[in-house]
Amino acid sequence: MQTAECAIGIDIGGTTTCFGFVDQHGSLLCEATIDTQPDQPADALVSRLCDGIGKLRAALSREYRLSGIGIGAPNANYHRGTVENPVNLNWGASVNLVELFRQRYDLPVAITNDANAAAIGELLFGGARGMKHAIVITMGTGLGSGIIVNGELLYGADGFAGELGHTTVDPEGRECACGKRGCLETYVSATGLCRSISELLGQRLEPSPLREVCPSKLTSKLVYEAARGGDPIALAAFDRSARLLGMKLADAVAHTSPEAIFLSGGLAAAGDLLLTPARRYLEEFLFTPYRGRVKLLRSELPESSGAVLGAAALAWHEVDTVPFDSAQGANVG
Amino acid sequence: MQTAECAIGIDIGGTTTCFGFVDQHGSLLCEATIDTQPDQPADALVSRLCDGIGKLRAALSREYRLSGIGIGAPNANYHRGTVENPVNLNWGASVNLVELFRQRYDLPVAITNDANAAAIGELLFGGARGMKHAIVITMGTGLGSGIIVNGELLYGADGFAGELGHTTVDPEGRECACGKRGCLETYVSATGLCRSISELLGQRLEPSPLREVCPSKLTSKLVYEAARGGDPIALAAFDRSARLLGMKLADAVAHTSPEAIFLSGGLAAAGDLLLTPARRYLEEFLFTPYRGRVKLLRSELPESSGAVLGAAALAWHEVDTVPFDSAQGANVG
Repeated sequence: MQTAECAIGIDIGGTTTCFGFVDQHGSLLCEATIDTQPDQPADALVSRLCDGIGKLRAALSREYRLSGIGIGAPNANYHRGTVENPVNLNWGASVNLVELFRQRYDLPVAITNDANAAAIGELLFGGARGMKHAIVITMGTGLGSGIIVNGELLYGADGFAGELGHTTVDPEGRECACGKRGCLETYVSATGLCRSISELLGQRLEPSPLREVCPSKLTSKLVYEAARGGDPIALAAFDRSARLLGMKLADAVAHTSPEAIFLSGGLAAAGDLLLTPARRYLEEFLFTPYRGRVKLLRSELPESSGAVLGAAALAWHEVDTVPFDSAQGANVG
Repeated sequence: MQTAECAIGIDIGGTTTCFGFVDQHGSLLCEATIDTQPDQPADALVSRLCDGIGKLRAALSREYRLSGIGIGAPNANYHRGTVENPVNLNWGASVNLVELFRQRYDLPVAITNDANAAAIGELLFGGARGMKHAIVITMGTGLGSGIIVNGELLYGADGFAGELGHTTVDPEGRECACGKRGCLETYVSATGLCRSISELLGQRLEPSPLREVCPSKLTSKLVYEAARGGDPIALAAFDRSARLLGMKLADAVAHTSPEAIFLSGGLAAAGDLLLTPARRYLEEFLFTPYRGRVKLLRSELPESSGAVLGAAALAWHEVDTVPFDSAQGANVG
């Protein structure tokens, strides 16, 4: 019997890091979570991850050959293999995470940011299977994006292509943590939705349960619940996000002309409150030749494991497209 | 002696159609111009073009093997080989121009819009030679664009990728001929510059020679001359165009992360009046990881023959990348 193969997907977040073993069909064989400990150096995280990977192996019921390692991390640069100036990790200007893993595993290792990993996940295991051109938008605390062009993730000249969260909605608009003003993610993200509530509470007079919540305690979940309860302020905030999302996605279509755009992440879970009006606005803002030709869909990857699947998909994608010295991989078990 | 090869480049405009013979190095061997006669059917134009091509052959001093035909035309779809609903040509909903040429020549024939042709021209014969990721912006009556990704022109899912002229600057902004509001080309184009003058003359009090020109008679050339003469209204109009161009090019960088952006067409000839402030604004609007990494340059193709060179470059690109039944081409002479 031929030994089956699997890849390791690692999703590094500011608080927790998830990792798992994923086969070629996108099945998550096993997964685990550790604290990122963002104050510690990257090398310490890699060591603890290797321990964790060793323990996961023991949990596998059969023998798997390890094909590669894929990593999704904030501010990751695919070309350089680095994580650069991550806001939530005390790692300094640049850490070559790919190198740190290669010192421990004789395997292909690749890294990219979490939104790009989500896009590759969608391409290999989700709704974008078989598509040549697609865009994946992740909406959580911020807004990330990954662009598929000619069946490949687009990295661009510098490894940082696909940062739609920092395209400009309004040059005189909201302050963004990046230092600019009016970036899309200041309007369309969990945080952006809450900022819209603050603005709307100042602009409008309707009573709203959200007037009883400190702005610092407001969450997109509370806004979602208020909207479900018919609160006009919460509904207006969703409509504002949906309109600006539709407008900027129409811009995105005018760049790469995708077959479909996939929404993932916490805010995408708001479902019809966001997706239905966003579809309408997208169509309104589309340049005529694109109208009726671009699908706006929810990600088909499960929200809980999408990031690990995406990171593993990156590894599978590397294995399929990049020649590697040790193409046979290492034996696990 | 081996027979040299050349491609035919054809640039179809609403008024005139230019065509020429171009060798592999981008040298224009000969060219000619005929009236487009936009009220006549496409087939009539193709017949007259074939006559013209025959006459040009006679002008060539040596024997050339014909490798292919490239066409730049408004509303052209590369995938389908068609020109669809062209505003300035009375050709109806769709004309398969590639088919019309293939009925007359046993050669590879390809068509795309004029901005895409300009981008391929820049890639093969101009400043984008050797670049993997670049954007070419053509600024004339409107604003067109062609996006180079991984060393290839990006067509997207539907053959219409790269329509930056119809990305939205301001959803409540100027009416666009496309039916939308606030499209980039209503601000950044020869026409957009003149519209800025009208707005500025209403908003400001300074004397200006442009107050003596009927709006219907105003041209970008008059605005250019006024700006060169120090007119504050004309200078403000250039600054407004430069700022919005910089803002939207920063968005474009956040999509495909090009190494350089090239400006071509009539408005690009305004040189420092537009390019210098646009560079500054682009840098201001760029998301931090891109800053200092994207060059904003003038096209290196001559303005007079850039369109024909671009169309011929499309033909050369086809010959190099697409297998064709008759790869040897037809003999000319």
